[in-house]
Amino acid sequence: MIVIMKPGASEQDVCHVVELVKDYGLKEHVIVGTNRTVIACLGDKRNVDKGAIENAAGVERIVPILAPYKIASREVKKEYTQIKIGDKGFPLGGKKVGVIAGPCSVENETQLLQTADKVAAAGCIGLRAGAFKPRTSPYSFQGLGVEGLKILGKAKEQTGLAVITEVVAVEHIEIVAEYVDILQIGARNMQHYPLLEALGKIKKPVLLKRGMSAQLDEFLLAAEYIINAGNSQVILCERGIRTFEEYVRNTLALAMVPELKEKTHLPVVVDPSHGTGHAHLVPAMCRAAVAAGADGLLIECHPDPEHALSDGAQSITPQALAELMQQIKAIAKAIGRDA
Amino acid sequence: MIVIMKPGASEQDVCHVVELVKDYGLKEHVIVGTNRTVIACLGDKRNVDKGAIENAAGVERIVPILAPYKIASREVKKEYTQIKIGDKGFPLGGKKVGVIAGPCSVENETQLLQTADKVAAAGCIGLRAGAFKPRTSPYSFQGLGVEGLKILGKAKEQTGLAVITEVVAVEHIEIVAEYVDILQIGARNMQHYPLLEALGKIKKPVLLKRGMSAQLDEFLLAAEYIINAGNSQVILCERGIRTFEEYVRNTLALAMVPELKEKTHLPVVVDPSHGTGHAHLVPAMCRAAVAAGADGLLIECHPDPEHALSDGAQSITPQALAELMQQIKAIAKAIGRDA
Amino acid sequence: MIVIMKPGASEQDVCHVVELVKDYGLKEHVIVGTNRTVIACLGDKRNVDKGAIENAAGVERIVPILAPYKIASREVKKEYTQIKIGDKGFPLGGKKVGVIAGPCSVENETQLLQTADKVAAAGCIGLRAGAFKPRTSPYSFQGLGVEGLKILGKAKEQTGLAVITEVVAVEHIEIVAEYVDILQIGARNMQHYPLLEALGKIKKPVLLKRGMSAQLDEFLLAAEYIINAGNSQVILCERGIRTFEEYVRNTLALAMVPELKEKTHLPVVVDPSHGTGHAHLVPAMCRAAVAAGADGLLIECHPDPEHALSDGAQSITPQALAELMQQIKAIAKAIGRDA
Amino acid sequence: MIVIMKPGASEQDVCHVVELVKDYGLKEHVIVGTNRTVIACLGDKRNVDKGAIENAAGVERIVPILAPYKIASREVKKEYTQIKIGDKGFPLGGKKVGVIAGPCSVENETQLLQTADKVAAAGCIGLRAGAFKPRTSPYSFQGLGVEGLKILGKAKEQTGLAVITEVVAVEHIEIVAEYVDILQIGARNMQHYPLLEALGKIKKPVLLKRGMSAQLDEFLLAAEYIINAGNSQVILCERGIRTFEEYVRNTLALAMVPELKEKTHLPVVVDPSHGTGHAHLVPAMCRAAVAAGADGLLIECHPDPEHALSDGAQSITPQALAELMQQIKAIAKAIGRDA
Repeated sequence: MIVIMKPGASEQDVCHVVELVKDYGLKEHVIVGTNRTVIACLGDKRNVDKGAIENAAGVERIVPILAPYKIASREVKKEYTQIKIGDKGFPLGGKKVGVIAGPCSVENETQLLQTADKVAAAGCIGLRAGAFKPRTSPYSFQGLGVEGLKILGKAKEQTGLAVITEVVAVEHIEIVAEYVDILQIGARNMQHYPLLEALGKIKKPVLLKRGMSAQLDEFLLAAEYIINAGNSQVILCERGIRTFEEYVRNTLALAMVPELKEKTHLPVVVDPSHGTGHAHLVPAMCRAAVAAGADGLLIECHPDPEHALSDGAQSITPQALAELMQQIKAIAKAIGRDA
Repeated sequence: MIVIMKPGASEQDVCHVVELVKDYGLKEHVIVGTNRTVIACLGDKRNVDKGAIENAAGVERIVPILAPYKIASREVKKEYTQIKIGDKGFPLGGKKVGVIAGPCSVENETQLLQTADKVAAAGCIGLRAGAFKPRTSPYSFQGLGVEGLKILGKAKEQTGLAVITEVVAVEHIEIVAEYVDILQIGARNMQHYPLLEALGKIKKPVLLKRGMSAQLDEFLLAAEYIINAGNSQVILCERGIRTFEEYVRNTLALAMVPELKEKTHLPVVVDPSHGTGHAHLVPAMCRAAVAAGADGLLIECHPDPEHALSDGAQSITPQALAELMQQIKAIAKAIGRDA
Repeated sequence: MIVIMKPGASEQDVCHVVELVKDYGLKEHVIVGTNRTVIACLGDKRNVDKGAIENAAGVERIVPILAPYKIASREVKKEYTQIKIGDKGFPLGGKKVGVIAGPCSVENETQLLQTADKVAAAGCIGLRAGAFKPRTSPYSFQGLGVEGLKILGKAKEQTGLAVITEVVAVEHIEIVAEYVDILQIGARNMQHYPLLEALGKIKKPVLLKRGMSAQLDEFLLAAEYIINAGNSQVILCERGIRTFEEYVRNTLALAMVPELKEKTHLPVVVDPSHGTGHAHLVPAMCRAAVAAGADGLLIECHPDPEHALSDGAQSITPQALAELMQQIKAIAKAIGRDA
Repeated sequence: MIVIMKPGASEQDVCHVVELVKDYGLKEHVIVGTNRTVIACLGDKRNVDKGAIENAAGVERIVPILAPYKIASREVKKEYTQIKIGDKGFPLGGKKVGVIAGPCSVENETQLLQTADKVAAAGCIGLRAGAFKPRTSPYSFQGLGVEGLKILGKAKEQTGLAVITEVVAVEHIEIVAEYVDILQIGARNMQHYPLLEALGKIKKPVLLKRGMSAQLDEFLLAAEYIINAGNSQVILCERGIRTFEEYVRNTLALAMVPELKEKTHLPVVVDPSHGTGHAHLVPAMCRAAVAAGADGLLIECHPDPEHALSDGAQSITPQALAELMQQIKAIAKAIGRDA
């Protein structure tokens, strides 16, 4: 941490800050510059509320030096983590790009089982579908709940696909973990810490979606909550951020992919369906995500998007998925990977 | 809802969309314009996933007409709701502007009781302080929990102030409701629906903070979740949004105040502490919030901000609060209100 | 400037960076911390491209210490600058809040002269209206040009109001300066440096609007261009920024007002018309801007907003302006100022 | 255009709006719905200020139906435009992806000629370098001006590369057009209409960068200014937008690529250097841009980034460029294109 003093700060101000720095258990190092004094603070205190010093007289601002996350960082673990997915143990985070597809919601058994067959046939490794749906409006379809989980279980059995679904409440974790392979934390819950901590106590992989306005540090700190609670099988998912752009539901920030691969050892997947909100943009952004280095993709696919109970606008058909998989494979190959 | 067709859409495309519209239980009304055809859809179906039709051939986009929220709306209830706060029953949402102040966290009994006395002496109607703290980092101070609630209870007894604290998990609601007057939903949890629904079942006022990147509709729909579950005592709180601005922690969007007063009957308060992140900006933004029509303010105030365990940078001292209250009263008076 | 090295940076990396720092004419100061090394660079070189060092091996990032602007800063001039406006020499930046109002565009003589009379009668100090209009679409009304300037000149003569209009091209400066008292640089041109430099060579006040996505530093650097070129009469105008908010045309960032009053000695005015985009939000935000400490306001006012050729949605009527002026005066008085 | 009335709007309000609609030369079509009345307005009046009607009593909001741009639209011209680049007439917008690389600024002859040789050797079709530099700070290196143009001319002669440089002022256009093949409008000037119109009068291709906070419609309207003034050789360039993200200089919005290819016939290129701001992110985002369908790339490349006079942090070395070109070719091939 570095404390930057104001130009006119007095010697007394500097002394006072030095005292505060010592109070925090840090060692100070005062540098008197041409225009102002800065105080470098030495020691590893990631838990100190750095902002408090900002209130002291003569202080202009505080610059943190250390990344606030630790165990999610490549500083601590250089090699990339591979996470085994589903009964077949697909290694996400390795050479092969893993594609997970499926409808926004489990609507009924026929819909899901038919989709699952097509998803498997297209060469995907996983099936996604919501049973407990977090919906912006209380009047929207909220998912089938446990019944949906059971249908997911059947689809898993029938196809051998790894199955992923979102969990929205701590009390659902146990039942969800019974039926699925990967538990997803949605963007709205990225900073719902009780959920993060509870998922830190299970033994299955967790897919953590980036919050709609989460910064990289916050995203990795949310992962750190889960790892710190005991579960190191965390998959990060970029799904777009909220910006002023109006032709998309979210702005898919693909530079997040290479940056995360630099900062963390965790696998990184991309969700171009939520990341754009429109089916016609999904194929291009799937290709781009893989070209940018994503370890996997999450794609919404519905047999009849026009009648989907949720997210119809961003769902592609199984036929489109099959075609897209060919493009994804070609891109993966072009960068020395498989899909 | 209005469906806008692409310029080249065929008659067949239009017929197909008309069929879809009927499937949704809506009545269609086709208008053939100079450049394109639009299909107005009549009927009140706020629960339909409008996006699905976007996938149909020839469709360019869908424009919703109805606001997605209902019972939070002034369309349904024109008169402003007043919510009685604390044992003294201060009517929030009425002529008088209510100020609630206090430290970010309950740190210990002395800190809180001393602050509470100063908050009461300054003329505030409520005391704020966190017992369960949602923190971005798992290594930061997480609050005193139930012990903190007990200290809040003492402060309430000692001062007669209405007491407000954040609740972060469904299982804490009962114990929190036992000790405090207003339960707060933090910005990170604005769309944690299990929490919204659970707070819809209690009999105490709920203060709902706007999510960091929530749009007005989403904010009111979150309120609607609570009201729909049975609790109509919802107070809305603007606390700043995430933008590209770098001199503030959040950008305080004060136009939200007059816009909410237009759209909803619920009381609207403003939190300039989180809304700026820096103590030196708090007084000006408190004055501005009241001038813009806020029904109340939430202000972070700490007896020793330099040593605060959380949010020190944005906390003002009790002396600054006392002075600020005079300014707030003057502004309130200037617009025909009291404080 | 501080260079933060990566955790694993070698001694050789540090030596190389020290060499680079010396190349830039700066003095280095190496601090070896618990986790990483940082290199403080001493000397006042605001013109160095700090980013270049980021490319050196072992470097994580660069933290600038000095503000990039200088002569616009209160570090250099502590007392606030007052700028004399119009023939009556109203001192903008002093105790009295100055209100400037008028239509978006000069549409014809009758429209402008009638509006000007009402603006003067309401107690405003200035009249605003566009003659050269920068319009998003090439098919929109582009203003009356020189004819518009002449009408502005008549309005000035008739009312004694200070007159302000936007200048969009360097070659218009001379003719515009002939007719008006204040030359405005619009948000779209905040970083059109040829215009800034050319306006630095005239002897009249310049009102500089913040760009739609300009950060504070960039805003002050744009002012610095003008001052550096010879004209210190620069008025800063906050007019809202582009964010994800959908109920406003722009998000009016009022915390910019107290922050600018902290960082710069230049007068600060606010434009709540562009800052919200909707007439019904203008009065509340005018009050809020004054309460936040603005030295003046820029308000769009049109005798018949429903038929305005531009910006009708955000224009208030002369009657509304008269009423609003009473509120503004009351707020100004409440904070110890006049209007 | 559709006018949505408020729920309580009176018959008189509706009649008044119908009158206004007729005043604008549009034909009205009133639809009385369950909850509210909407008025569809027929006729192609893209130049009407739609906002003005918003002010009428009983109006809630206005929804535009027609895209505001026309000649840039694929509604008017379905086939993609190919623009011949440089003396060799490379067809940008065709099957082959064109890469343009070079330093941020022309610093001296040796630097540029050496870089140009490497750029040509790597298989690029164009050379980029700034002679007139728009810089955020008046104290930064502002470019070599005409001398820089002459060096660019030599590089063109020596290598046969198409040469592109930014033009910041109308009065520079003539001299710039003399030396280079493509004239660039920078992000800061995307809405500097005098420049757009002046470039509409020359006979050379113009590369138009998206403004930092420009929406798709505004971007295409800026292109429309140029085309409307007489020059249809416009190349669009996505270069990242300003968001809350802090690990990048800008957020590269790659979904803009497929969306633009849907909406406009103009070629679309991507600048991942400004679009990320950091050299280590450039290769991944170049690959992603091509995978997303970009017709070309603009890459900053400097022989000695650590000593670059501008944009050093985001410049890659010639060696890195050579390697990157292989990856770009592989990706292009994977999607059925060449590079």
